Amino acid sequence: MGENGRVQLQQLFSPSVQHTLDVIGIFVFAISGALLAVRKNFDVFGIAVLAEVTALGGGLFRDVVIGAVPPAAFTDLGYFLTPLIATLVVFFLHPHVERIQTGVLVFDAAGLGLFCVSGTTKAYSYGLNLTASATLGLATAVGGGVLRDVLANEVPSLLRWDRDLYAVPAIVGATMVALCIRYDALTPLTSGLAVVTAFALRLLAMRFHWRAPRAWNRRSTVTEE
Amino acid sequence: MGENGRVQLQQLFSPSVQHTLDVIGIFVFAISGALLAVRKNFDVFGIAVLAEVTALGGGLFRDVVIGAVPPAAFTDLGYFLTPLIATLVVFFLHPHVERIQTGVLVFDAAGLGLFCVSGTTKAYSYGLNLTASATLGLATAVGGGVLRDVLANEVPSLLRWDRDLYAVPAIVGATMVALCIRYDALTPLTSGLAVVTAFALRLLAMRFHWRAPRAWNRRSTVTEE
Amino acid sequence: MGENGRVQLQQLFSPSVQHTLDVIGIFVFAISGALLAVRKNFDVFGIAVLAEVTALGGGLFRDVVIGAVPPAAFTDLGYFLTPLIATLVVFFLHPHVERIQTGVLVFDAAGLGLFCVSGTTKAYSYGLNLTASATLGLATAVGGGVLRDVLANEVPSLLRWDRDLYAVPAIVGATMVALCIRYDALTPLTSGLAVVTAFALRLLAMRFHWRAPRAWNRRSTVTEE
Repeated sequence: MGENGRVQLQQLFSPSVQHTLDVIGIFVFAISGALLAVRKNFDVFGIAVLAEVTALGGGLFRDVVIGAVPPAAFTDLGYFLTPLIATLVVFFLHPHVERIQTGVLVFDAAGLGLFCVSGTTKAYSYGLNLTASATLGLATAVGGGVLRDVLANEVPSLLRWDRDLYAVPAIVGATMVALCIRYDALTPLTSGLAVVTAFALRLLAMRFHWRAPRAWNRRSTVTEE
Repeated sequence: MGENGRVQLQQLFSPSVQHTLDVIGIFVFAISGALLAVRKNFDVFGIAVLAEVTALGGGLFRDVVIGAVPPAAFTDLGYFLTPLIATLVVFFLHPHVERIQTGVLVFDAAGLGLFCVSGTTKAYSYGLNLTASATLGLATAVGGGVLRDVLANEVPSLLRWDRDLYAVPAIVGATMVALCIRYDALTPLTSGLAVVTAFALRLLAMRFHWRAPRAWNRRSTVTEE
Repeated sequence: MGENGRVQLQQLFSPSVQHTLDVIGIFVFAISGALLAVRKNFDVFGIAVLAEVTALGGGLFRDVVIGAVPPAAFTDLGYFLTPLIATLVVFFLHPHVERIQTGVLVFDAAGLGLFCVSGTTKAYSYGLNLTASATLGLATAVGGGVLRDVLANEVPSLLRWDRDLYAVPAIVGATMVALCIRYDALTPLTSGLAVVTAFALRLLAMRFHWRAPRAWNRRSTVTEE
């Protein structure tokens, strides 16, 4: 696939559809950051910072790594303002938002699916190989959440064995996109299928509390080095 | 404003004045990092690392995001050596430095004012839009302190509701610069005014313990997710 | 030294020798990340993430700072797969790996020596000055470990006074390389000597529990700000 084909990859969907999907993903990730900030007792600026970092951190990391600077997070005003709207929503309505926590998790799963696919596609369009592209798709999807937890001074939810599978759905979605690219079969349809697969896997993981194994022969509980 | 005008923006003050202001800002931020390192019982290398990260981290983040690589932190020897001098000062004199803690906080406020203005100007001179430039000005001013707290394994002071306002003065200063650029009124005088405004707001926030509100209807204390 | 000379610097050793040394360094760093992940009770994906970050984080930081994007971590499949192999080794054999903990520390010391030398050389070949190159050599060697500890929500081992010297051997190795470049004496022999010196200093620091001093006149134990 030539350079032209690579750049066009980013435009799988019509630009406006792609942008709408991105903004939805950004919004739901921002909600999860803002809710954690409220739980940690942060003030309104802390809530806004955590919302921005959670929503845009994964894409920012990807863009810096692939050399797409300045990153989309800083050039698209809509990307920047969306987390501020999420901040206002959580600031004024957070007991209600918490009450619909399941709804938020469903949206977060949708964001995970959207970002692992769009992240993989964008990385490939900047010339990375398929493995690196899928890895950056994963990083796009989970990076913001890791930064959120680091700033909140918690062990990243992504790494903990006592949380439902989060990385695996994104890995599956990103791998599906990479395979489609490899076999020249990436279309809006197959992309959408990858989004839906990642989304559905995450929902199933939450529903049935799927977890990943820890190391074999673990003998004891957490001990410090 | 053309590309030429953009690049010239960086040279608002004479280069030597700008450089002196930068070094002062770097020095006071480094002192705050070194003092936290002493409180956390770090050894002399830990003190130096925290001083460097606190002083240069915000600008490093800005430069990587706008594509100004290698960042000024690595090309200007004075920027690199200043935090090491701060390390020596704190290492040998830290009880005295702590005794003049208020003085340190005043200098830190000056650094906040200087960096939010110079960060916004530099980001704009690299072609970012006004909102993104102001955001990166804020990130330049507060980024080092956030990295400092993350490395010290503490919740970033910036995010906590029980600390006096820190982000707001920087937001005001960065916004003033952005508005001046918008209306073609950025001069050494108006820049200086933005620095002084951010500086004064931070001093007032410390003096009167101004704090930002937390989310409405908070019902309980911190609970983990 | 001209631009050509600079770029050729990266090829001090034959490419295959250099690559083999890099992969060894990556493997031993990945083992240290994976072992900490097991101790923190992470699941298998958490182990893999921590192994990747520990092994590749320092070089990734260096590459982003010097503008070598996409970073080697994402363009070289071997670099990416090595930490996954380390993950499998630790996942299935970790009680045995822990039993040979001393062996792991020796390999980690070798990684430290290799990375501080190759990091300094690569940074210089991208046009940075000698001080900045040595600093980035240090960052390449210790950066992954710092990220590992931040993700594991611990105070970075690098900064703590109660750990054997870790930064100093890397600083010595990186400085030796910078001096060799300055006096036009960088050859495979002198490079190898720098690697061995850093390696030996780290082994001696572990053997005799060398530690760095804390600030003078410390009066009390750790207190929060």
